[in-house]
Amino acid sequence: MTTDHLPEATRTPQRGRPRDASRDRALMDATLAELQLHGYSGLRTAAVAKRAGVSTATLYRRWRSKEQLVVDAARLWAEDLGPDRDTGNLRSDLALLLHDKATALDGPSGRTLRAVLGEAAHNQALADLLLREYVTPLHERVQALLARAAERGEIPPVADPVVVGEMVIGPMVTHTFLIPHTPGSRPGADIAERLLPYLLRALGARE
Amino acid sequence: MTTDHLPEATRTPQRGRPRDASRDRALMDATLAELQLHGYSGLRTAAVAKRAGVSTATLYRRWRSKEQLVVDAARLWAEDLGPDRDTGNLRSDLALLLHDKATALDGPSGRTLRAVLGEAAHNQALADLLLREYVTPLHERVQALLARAAERGEIPPVADPVVVGEMVIGPMVTHTFLIPHTPGSRPGADIAERLLPYLLRALGARE
Repeated sequence: MTTDHLPEATRTPQRGRPRDASRDRALMDATLAELQLHGYSGLRTAAVAKRAGVSTATLYRRWRSKEQLVVDAARLWAEDLGPDRDTGNLRSDLALLLHDKATALDGPSGRTLRAVLGEAAHNQALADLLLREYVTPLHERVQALLARAAERGEIPPVADPVVVGEMVIGPMVTHTFLIPHTPGSRPGADIAERLLPYLLRALGARE
Repeated sequence: MTTDHLPEATRTPQRGRPRDASRDRALMDATLAELQLHGYSGLRTAAVAKRAGVSTATLYRRWRSKEQLVVDAARLWAEDLGPDRDTGNLRSDLALLLHDKATALDGPSGRTLRAVLGEAAHNQALADLLLREYVTPLHERVQALLARAAERGEIPPVADPVVVGEMVIGPMVTHTFLIPHTPGSRPGADIAERLLPYLLRALGARE
């Protein structure tokens, strides 16, 4: 995970000096830290710059607005669901996906999602980012593992894989975001484990 | 739904003149409208006062801060899941609950939830409100309908009703909040209908 993931479009043109990748990374880390502490509404670019140990002028040379800064930071942390892997059967495919999603939700990616979810209602760049980075990869993995399970004859073909995708991601999101948890607990991992038998039954898998 | 629902604790003491309930209601409506347009971070108390046709001084006599204003407005709109009703069988009990929840999510209640979900990570008053007004009533209805269904012999006793509650609320929340929808569509109602057969199967109900 490096600042190489940042899209060129959000960068201002070079002005003679080479870019300092470690400083960009420090600014992204600082953005995440401030976002998770104070939320989108409480985020101050001056606090981000201070935390990263740079001047606000330096920050604004890279990112022209708080919005751009947050979009790039959210993109950086969203890339962590991991690849689809064929483990050979539905139960372990699904357990792996739930585990990967839980790890994401229990970590910085989940806290970032929570911090920007409300803002995305009013911000097309954030809404597009959430769809592309959080929703689509999950639904693609669900579709792939359902197709493999049906092909193996473990379950009947699934009529509505989108609903199944929502049944994977939804309970984990609400359990993580809406229920109070003790610091240090891993609510995503907890609900992922408890969800698995219900999902298998919903899919008509053999017990 | 009146301002009688507002808790006394958030009100400033009377100062000789009787309170104007219709003005309070106009301020609550204006808060919701601004919240849904601009989100928590974009909400300006001056814009709320202007929309309600009162001075900012009047607003601040009732609510000392933007936070208090939003907490009260969110409480006002959260009270809409409706009571549990025993329809006599699991399928129609569950369909009714899904319908009620979808109506809430597709309306002002859902837009309010989305607007304050991120802020609740940093605001204990909002977090408590979400738990009490959005989460607990849903889980209580789920528990009650599952107990009735098991008693009727429609399903085996449910080992983990909390997970089932999350399977009801979660997919509707993520489908409503994370997927783009055309204006005027009712994503909650759409997913509620598609979710029902999968939930019944997850519970081991007879087809």
